[in-house]
Amino acid sequence: MALVVVGSVAYDGVETPHGKVDRMLGGAATYISLAASYFTPVKLVAVVGDDFAAEDAALLASRGIDLGGLERVAGGKTFFWSGVYSADMNDRTTLRTDLNVFADFNPKLPASYRSEPYLLLGNIQPALQASVRGQMEGVRLAGGDTMNYWINDFRAELLDTLKGWDFLLINDAEARLLSGESNLRRAAAEVQAMGPRTLVVKRGEYGAVLFRGGRHFMAPGYLLENVFDPTGAGDCFAGGFMGYLAGRGVAAGGSEIDFAELRRAVIYGSVMGSFCCEQFGVDRFRTLTRDDIEGRYAEFQNCTSF
Amino acid sequence: MALVVVGSVAYDGVETPHGKVDRMLGGAATYISLAASYFTPVKLVAVVGDDFAAEDAALLASRGIDLGGLERVAGGKTFFWSGVYSADMNDRTTLRTDLNVFADFNPKLPASYRSEPYLLLGNIQPALQASVRGQMEGVRLAGGDTMNYWINDFRAELLDTLKGWDFLLINDAEARLLSGESNLRRAAAEVQAMGPRTLVVKRGEYGAVLFRGGRHFMAPGYLLENVFDPTGAGDCFAGGFMGYLAGRGVAAGGSEIDFAELRRAVIYGSVMGSFCCEQFGVDRFRTLTRDDIEGRYAEFQNCTSF
Repeated sequence: MALVVVGSVAYDGVETPHGKVDRMLGGAATYISLAASYFTPVKLVAVVGDDFAAEDAALLASRGIDLGGLERVAGGKTFFWSGVYSADMNDRTTLRTDLNVFADFNPKLPASYRSEPYLLLGNIQPALQASVRGQMEGVRLAGGDTMNYWINDFRAELLDTLKGWDFLLINDAEARLLSGESNLRRAAAEVQAMGPRTLVVKRGEYGAVLFRGGRHFMAPGYLLENVFDPTGAGDCFAGGFMGYLAGRGVAAGGSEIDFAELRRAVIYGSVMGSFCCEQFGVDRFRTLTRDDIEGRYAEFQNCTSF
Repeated sequence: MALVVVGSVAYDGVETPHGKVDRMLGGAATYISLAASYFTPVKLVAVVGDDFAAEDAALLASRGIDLGGLERVAGGKTFFWSGVYSADMNDRTTLRTDLNVFADFNPKLPASYRSEPYLLLGNIQPALQASVRGQMEGVRLAGGDTMNYWINDFRAELLDTLKGWDFLLINDAEARLLSGESNLRRAAAEVQAMGPRTLVVKRGEYGAVLFRGGRHFMAPGYLLENVFDPTGAGDCFAGGFMGYLAGRGVAAGGSEIDFAELRRAVIYGSVMGSFCCEQFGVDRFRTLTRDDIEGRYAEFQNCTSF
């Protein structure tokens, strides 16, 4: 039982106070897939140009990620983004966004993907997310991410898409924007009424809050000694969260989601987000092991239980 | 075994998106004392003018707070502060600060206070904090709060004062300012090297982090449905934290502080800070019971354990 991941695969240029890389593998679907791959088989749906390097495809394949849905556009160039982070790395400024082949991305799922039970939709146009959702047969748990651009300018389309989701992962500013409520608890209730019964509000270095039904669970952010590059941390959170649930077969057979599993999924999400920040781009995933992950999970427990 | 609390007793004018109160009981020592009084006997040291209302003294006395150290200056007026909060209540603008009798505050401890084992110093000039510390005989656990003004303009005096403290409670911006380190974990190590072996970094709605030795404990902030007035929340955190430790007799007899007790103290601090925000000024403490506190403590456990 695999997780289908849809979103951007890109090249990023990133500058943080710790250094600068002109071009490296990036994109939401890349980070989500790498993080999720530690927990469950992953099948990727994305588009790249013919400049996409064999070594980057090899890194994804080395984690067992199915690239059957990675479309290559001949003569096209891969999505490129570059940005620079503030001194405290809490803000970033986009320097360049070249959509390239991503501008015409119209995800089509290989036949071998369509019967999988788990679907995670990265931040792309809501209509495309809905189209992917419609191509899946018998999905048990589907959800994804969105952003202020879609919330503001594609609101009706987004609301229509959200109706078909079991969960939504967004940050606190997006939750407030989507709901029109400044109080997080009331914002969460509004968003849940739009469709996704499970809402995860990501709060960057401050952790995350999970809402389901009338209950919630709060996880503080892992305190890193050094943050080298926060790019992709939110996507790795999503990948760890959903990867864990898929790996455990949660909601399989139409059963109700166990709240205890959701709590653990939030912690695994936080763990994966924290590892992501320790090196530039996806570099941490070149050496990360499941043992490292379990070690940090235990550390989380030790730093939060009372 | 009582807790001696030193700091400001004031009148506040506060405007939040939920309403406006022109003049009500406030001041750091007021909030600290009220919060701590649920856990341990409190002895207050502060100064007021002869405009200090009998009903306000009566509220403090009703919580068993010893007012023997509350100096009244004939012909003087009580410290007055007023401010207005931003729409999301994460920022506030000071409209007026009349120090009045607080300008000449030179705390002298009644003889009956000097042999108490616990001391919590609110945010006043570091030299005055040091003077109070010097008046105590056989203190077992002493510490307090400070702010950017003292960190920037009275640095040497503050560093000298901190050497005599067991614990320091500050917010994250202050921890970064005091240490010169932007990373919170490294900032904490720097601050601990200045004297206070226990450091609590308050992060407002995002909770708090406790550092002691090489260990730390993270508590997320309680998610309130409605925040009416955040004034005093940080002081109530300090009062709950220190009140709990005093009530448990922690470090009595020179024993090492139990880390599990410190964790629980942080949660009680968070609980008291959260209650403070539910009504204007100190109003929540007119009706709050120890049962309410235990109920929220249990809720915290339920919302954070995994």
